[in-house]
Amino acid sequence: MTPRAGILITGTEVLTGIISDRNGPWLSERLRELGVDAAMIAIVGDRREDLLAALEYMRRDGMALIVTSGGLGPTADDLTAEIVGRFSGREMVLDDRLEERIAEILRPLMRRWPGLDPDAIRASNRKQAVIPQGATVLDPVGTAPGLVVPPADPPGPTVVVLPGPPRELQPMWETARATEAFQAAIAGAPTYRRGIVRLFGIPESEIANTLRAAQDDGLDLGPLEITTCLRRAEIEVATMYEPGAQHAYDALIEFIANRHADTLFSRDGSTIDEQVVSLLDGRTIAVAESCTGGLMSARLTERAGSSEYFLGGVVAYSNEAKAQLVGVDPELTARAGAVSTEVAEALADGAAARFGADIGIGITGIAGPGGGTEEKPVGFVCFSVCVRRGDGPAARITRSARLPGNRADVRDRSTTVAMHLLRRVLRGETDTIVLPGQVTQSAKT
Amino acid sequence: MTPRAGILITGTEVLTGIISDRNGPWLSERLRELGVDAAMIAIVGDRREDLLAALEYMRRDGMALIVTSGGLGPTADDLTAEIVGRFSGREMVLDDRLEERIAEILRPLMRRWPGLDPDAIRASNRKQAVIPQGATVLDPVGTAPGLVVPPADPPGPTVVVLPGPPRELQPMWETARATEAFQAAIAGAPTYRRGIVRLFGIPESEIANTLRAAQDDGLDLGPLEITTCLRRAEIEVATMYEPGAQHAYDALIEFIANRHADTLFSRDGSTIDEQVVSLLDGRTIAVAESCTGGLMSARLTERAGSSEYFLGGVVAYSNEAKAQLVGVDPELTARAGAVSTEVAEALADGAAARFGADIGIGITGIAGPGGGTEEKPVGFVCFSVCVRRGDGPAARITRSARLPGNRADVRDRSTTVAMHLLRRVLRGETDTIVLPGQVTQSAKT
Repeated sequence: MTPRAGILITGTEVLTGIISDRNGPWLSERLRELGVDAAMIAIVGDRREDLLAALEYMRRDGMALIVTSGGLGPTADDLTAEIVGRFSGREMVLDDRLEERIAEILRPLMRRWPGLDPDAIRASNRKQAVIPQGATVLDPVGTAPGLVVPPADPPGPTVVVLPGPPRELQPMWETARATEAFQAAIAGAPTYRRGIVRLFGIPESEIANTLRAAQDDGLDLGPLEITTCLRRAEIEVATMYEPGAQHAYDALIEFIANRHADTLFSRDGSTIDEQVVSLLDGRTIAVAESCTGGLMSARLTERAGSSEYFLGGVVAYSNEAKAQLVGVDPELTARAGAVSTEVAEALADGAAARFGADIGIGITGIAGPGGGTEEKPVGFVCFSVCVRRGDGPAARITRSARLPGNRADVRDRSTTVAMHLLRRVLRGETDTIVLPGQVTQSAKT
Repeated sequence: MTPRAGILITGTEVLTGIISDRNGPWLSERLRELGVDAAMIAIVGDRREDLLAALEYMRRDGMALIVTSGGLGPTADDLTAEIVGRFSGREMVLDDRLEERIAEILRPLMRRWPGLDPDAIRASNRKQAVIPQGATVLDPVGTAPGLVVPPADPPGPTVVVLPGPPRELQPMWETARATEAFQAAIAGAPTYRRGIVRLFGIPESEIANTLRAAQDDGLDLGPLEITTCLRRAEIEVATMYEPGAQHAYDALIEFIANRHADTLFSRDGSTIDEQVVSLLDGRTIAVAESCTGGLMSARLTERAGSSEYFLGGVVAYSNEAKAQLVGVDPELTARAGAVSTEVAEALADGAAARFGADIGIGITGIAGPGGGTEEKPVGFVCFSVCVRRGDGPAARITRSARLPGNRADVRDRSTTVAMHLLRRVLRGETDTIVLPGQVTQSAKT
């Protein structure tokens, strides 16, 4: 049977959104990897009654393991160890060895700040050495020790108590996992595998239909825990399964691949950004963008080492900038309109030419909220990607699409569309691609 | 008495960290503004028993209000409305008017995807029109309606059911607040005022010192709930207080203003981006940036209507691009180094000249993780902002700073630093500005 676990994030600053929690999702993923069903993340402030109520809830809900983060510091609002001791039915005792260990950690700190009162510091840190009797101590990475606290009166959840800062929590999690008390709590957990595939160019409801069709077709989806999610205009299908269900998972992915050959772009979980970088294969790239306002260049330079392939970009917001910096013919702009596939092509060609790059990307569109017309409404964006060989374009994809959402969505999704067009060109697929809300298309090679 | 509220975030993709939750902290803040004690955020996956258990827990814990996000879509794993109906003791019924409203929303979508089966779509979306009897419907912003569901058998919590995407949830929250059922649930909550001031160029610990000093000075901070937070290299001091504490709040802000005259840039909560736009006053702007890779231009074009002042930008990643597109003298780059205040000035001047803009911004630095040296480590960034009058620069600020954090942090914080230098130039303050980790400086007028 799969043991269940709860994650309890403590801290008023997290509850009120001043600090955003990174530990909950991280611990949830680690627990799943161990075959533990992380069923809930709870975030509560630094209040005794709220901490205890959340722990009691998780016990009643049948959790075999509870992992807490935060509340282990030396100040009065750091309550976790004490509350967990009470919850587990264990008396609080001073651990002499731990007190000495904390003093050792603080010694260099106290030398650096000679003005501090050593007695006051020692007293406030003695608090951190008072732990539930019988708990396993996890050596501090910062100054706060962690704990693994089994129930005094089994059965009941074992509580893993970790500090809040992720750079302390993450290594101490590894230590906690290795303890006997931890292993005993999750005894019987199955091992899980996790597979991710990604699609671009279909609505989320189509994947729901495909899953239903797979079931109608006799595929056994029972042993697969499938989550679909729409992110930055792509669909991500993440599946957790036990090793024995590998065949069921493979059959599902084959089924998806057959129905969505055109839109399934990642079977191994790799992202579009990763794929583009590996497809570039030494070729250089340049951008001329309008409505995305710099976000396309920013996306291509997100990764360390991007200067090896990214030469530069122009944010050509005004028509004059399009002409003077990228060489877009003002007559073309006047004739076809600044937002047109023709100008997108001229931007792509101009970017490649001006920066001397192998590949040029051109983007022009209407991010809104103003500026839309009947023919070219808000969200209408034109894209062109060209790959040069010698003096002229050797391969090109040009498309326009109508993207949903507000100004920020249109700008962000436009960069995703451009990444996918780029991938297609780099793979030599210049004729088949369907965009969400595609309006017109042209493809030449 | 302050009513308590719980926030329930649903979605396996949030629980497993595929999507990070932004709604929990946002709702927590909104509830506090209404005088409601948001005591807990719970995140659970799309499982009936987990959803129901979390709701039951919040009822037992005495919550007057529960706000849920997510699980309102058309697919089978979208369970929230049904579970909330069961929890509130209300039968599920088809709302004809709502069904027609959803069909209306889907019509243009169906035109965009002509290949889809209309009957299948209608059936799967009828599900979204089945709601707990007696609930107040919140009109969809996307395709999912929200709900305000009072308990069938009071007392008990009223549940506000909202969709997961923040751009749908946030406007629908405003609608929910205005409903009678919502107002009844939080009756008795005290009214609060909220004040925000912003500072740039001091460490967060300095604000903690100032608050202590204010207390030592006899200021009464008791009725003020003050949270300080470091965000995008700025410090935000947000204070909640009841109307009777207005005098205490005003005294605190005066105290902060006296101690931090140089770094307090916003007393009314306005952001640096808002301030810059109003200071531009008809002047146009252009950017030449290197390490920020397009993010500076993207920041200046985030707002609707930015084409009125933003003419364009160059992302000059390579030295060749700096020379050819912005006119940076290659000898200067060779002599001073691509990352230098000299090249930052040349970038600012070149941007203004090339785009014919009144104002030019130049940014060059080392975003990391590679490329750092002893003299110019990772995070070392040079900035220049010039305002032209006629042919030459009439006013200019040039600075270098060493910014903390990883590649993404350095890139993002660099845009904040540039925004503040821009504000200073626009205000005619070209001589006094302190940057976090400032290394060198020069200022001419």
